[in-house]
Amino acid sequence: MPPAFQITARDSASCARAGVVTTAHGPVMTPVFMPVGTRGTVKSLTPHELRDHGAQIILGNTYHLYLQPGHELIARRGGLHHFMAWDGPILTDSGGFQVFSLVYGGIADEIKGRRPQHAERLTDMVRVTEDAVIFKSYLDGSRHVFTPERSIQVQHGIGADIMVCFDELPPFRAGYDYTAQSMERTHRWAARCLAAHHERPRATLPNRDQLLFGIVHGGVFPALRQASAEHISSMGFDGICIGGSLGADKPQMYDVVAMTVPHLPENLARHLLGVGDVDDLFEGVARGIDMFDCVSPTRLGRHGTALVRDPARRWKLNVSNAALREDDGPLQSDCPCYTCRTFSRAYIHYLYRAKELLAIRLLSLHNVAFLLNLMAEVRQALAEGRFADCYAAWLGKPLG
Amino acid sequence: MPPAFQITARDSASCARAGVVTTAHGPVMTPVFMPVGTRGTVKSLTPHELRDHGAQIILGNTYHLYLQPGHELIARRGGLHHFMAWDGPILTDSGGFQVFSLVYGGIADEIKGRRPQHAERLTDMVRVTEDAVIFKSYLDGSRHVFTPERSIQVQHGIGADIMVCFDELPPFRAGYDYTAQSMERTHRWAARCLAAHHERPRATLPNRDQLLFGIVHGGVFPALRQASAEHISSMGFDGICIGGSLGADKPQMYDVVAMTVPHLPENLARHLLGVGDVDDLFEGVARGIDMFDCVSPTRLGRHGTALVRDPARRWKLNVSNAALREDDGPLQSDCPCYTCRTFSRAYIHYLYRAKELLAIRLLSLHNVAFLLNLMAEVRQALAEGRFADCYAAWLGKPLG
Repeated sequence: MPPAFQITARDSASCARAGVVTTAHGPVMTPVFMPVGTRGTVKSLTPHELRDHGAQIILGNTYHLYLQPGHELIARRGGLHHFMAWDGPILTDSGGFQVFSLVYGGIADEIKGRRPQHAERLTDMVRVTEDAVIFKSYLDGSRHVFTPERSIQVQHGIGADIMVCFDELPPFRAGYDYTAQSMERTHRWAARCLAAHHERPRATLPNRDQLLFGIVHGGVFPALRQASAEHISSMGFDGICIGGSLGADKPQMYDVVAMTVPHLPENLARHLLGVGDVDDLFEGVARGIDMFDCVSPTRLGRHGTALVRDPARRWKLNVSNAALREDDGPLQSDCPCYTCRTFSRAYIHYLYRAKELLAIRLLSLHNVAFLLNLMAEVRQALAEGRFADCYAAWLGKPLG
Repeated sequence: MPPAFQITARDSASCARAGVVTTAHGPVMTPVFMPVGTRGTVKSLTPHELRDHGAQIILGNTYHLYLQPGHELIARRGGLHHFMAWDGPILTDSGGFQVFSLVYGGIADEIKGRRPQHAERLTDMVRVTEDAVIFKSYLDGSRHVFTPERSIQVQHGIGADIMVCFDELPPFRAGYDYTAQSMERTHRWAARCLAAHHERPRATLPNRDQLLFGIVHGGVFPALRQASAEHISSMGFDGICIGGSLGADKPQMYDVVAMTVPHLPENLARHLLGVGDVDDLFEGVARGIDMFDCVSPTRLGRHGTALVRDPARRWKLNVSNAALREDDGPLQSDCPCYTCRTFSRAYIHYLYRAKELLAIRLLSLHNVAFLLNLMAEVRQALAEGRFADCYAAWLGKPLG
């Protein structure tokens, strides 16, 4: 395998860069947004639609796939690529994030610093030891134990091209001391993940050329972020994820990225986990992030929101709004997606109000395509030295 | 316009025939099955998928489209073809069937002779006079009045290529006297529909070349079916629907068809409303039916059933069956649909159990394609003088 990441362009006015991640199922041009197929399907869409609309790589969630249908069944089917009929690159998270975030009542609440409604349920649903996380299934309440070794074993069975180390997700309100202890444990778990990955005979796996990304923690504390970035970067991973609590709001998240990236090596790709708002993509790229994933385009679609090129609306259009009732235009003018090439706002407004499944399909497809096209524009701008112009055109304000 | 229907082949051993219905949006090769897009969308599927899988014509429901989004809005959007992006032929029913069947608690109960659970609700939800049907909306309880003229006005606004006359649907248990009176009223309404259609200036309509089909009633009574067939056939319609109560079971439905068809002219296409089981399609064709429609392929898909070529299973496979858990084969071997070309039974079993929307899409697409391909086989067999062989191969028993 060639080096996992090669840089092809840099922006002169920011930390932004373009590059290529090389995987067993083909190259991924960065910066990249990856649609999330939580349970082996990007909700309501086919793999061919994703490919036709520019998806290069998708993400699967280890936690969900482990619980149903199970990594062993997926491995017997030839791995997730074959099972779901997606022949491009796949990344799986470690399962750690999901184990905790589903218990916390949605990571959005945590990241945004809102106190969980039932914090006492945490101890009932999940328990952390030095060795493992013990949790109950969201499906049937059954008891499960995840260790770093188990996470890698599960990810080996799924067969994604990029795996991620198993980590603990401390609550945002944990404070410096707990965050530091949790970070140290995540570092020890990172070493166990690496060992588990390299000990496994590759010939038994559905995908023999899996990459393994480390994950940087440290919460909102600059000293911890620096320590974690330097530690994880020294361990020999194929790339780096920025995980853990990212702060209470968007400015704090941007600060966390800015305090982490300078301590990462240039020659490893950097993935900011679970981020996909339009402004966050630009701010992440400007601070040196290469890879993003988020459920937002399909989740927004299921809830009747279309992404549009309008910063004044925060890039969101509520399709059930009565103003669309007789609007014969597309969701977004000049959008090349199937939805916008084919259907009017009036039709989609009607379908959504009538609770027709096709509304969800058409909105999900548009929203995914919208972010994929946005990132293609960003890559093109970086290649042509115009990133600041692209940023200003999208966000309606200058870069920096 | 050329004659609306031309016969291209006849079977020597039955009343089956092949032909072409000519419409403003192109020809329809018969015998044909038309997928039902109740509310301007064949549930979960795009018009391009339908076309790619062989759909020639689809059906829209006047009752639903009238209530939401309304025929006037559809007309302002350029008609249903443009609104839903389907440029092939469309047929709309008259609304009568829906007004009654939704009140009766599902027409399947009625056709099968099961007594409605709450027959007293009928008078509350719908009332019939010589002039009109007064009914309450299933959406919001609002009061509406449908007359034959109103039904045609609504169907003019929708702009389908084939319209159907407004009729009263008497309950199956109505008996001879009520069925005869109701049939006479339906005949008077047929004359009013014809007049309303011909009086309207075509230049104001989204589709200037709409055909109008009459509808034959008479319940299960041979004398009434003959009288209705002869009366409706003499009125100058572009084609004939067989409607009304079709009996308590499949044999009685076949009898109703057999007692009606001989009294219809050869040169008009015949549509058996709301029928789409595999055996019913063959038995209908054998008795001289040219056109069929049914919600079954998409409804079965939403409920986890795949159509398969197996009379012993009544052509149905329950995809949530545990036997499919590790089945790497397609839903139906040799099926050319996207679902069967791409995905395994194991994946669809998993998706359906996980309640993923993609399961509904993939099953709906397969089931629709399955019936479209079946009818293409029937047409080919008729053209080649092999209908009896085709019947025997599908139903596992000889024709006749």
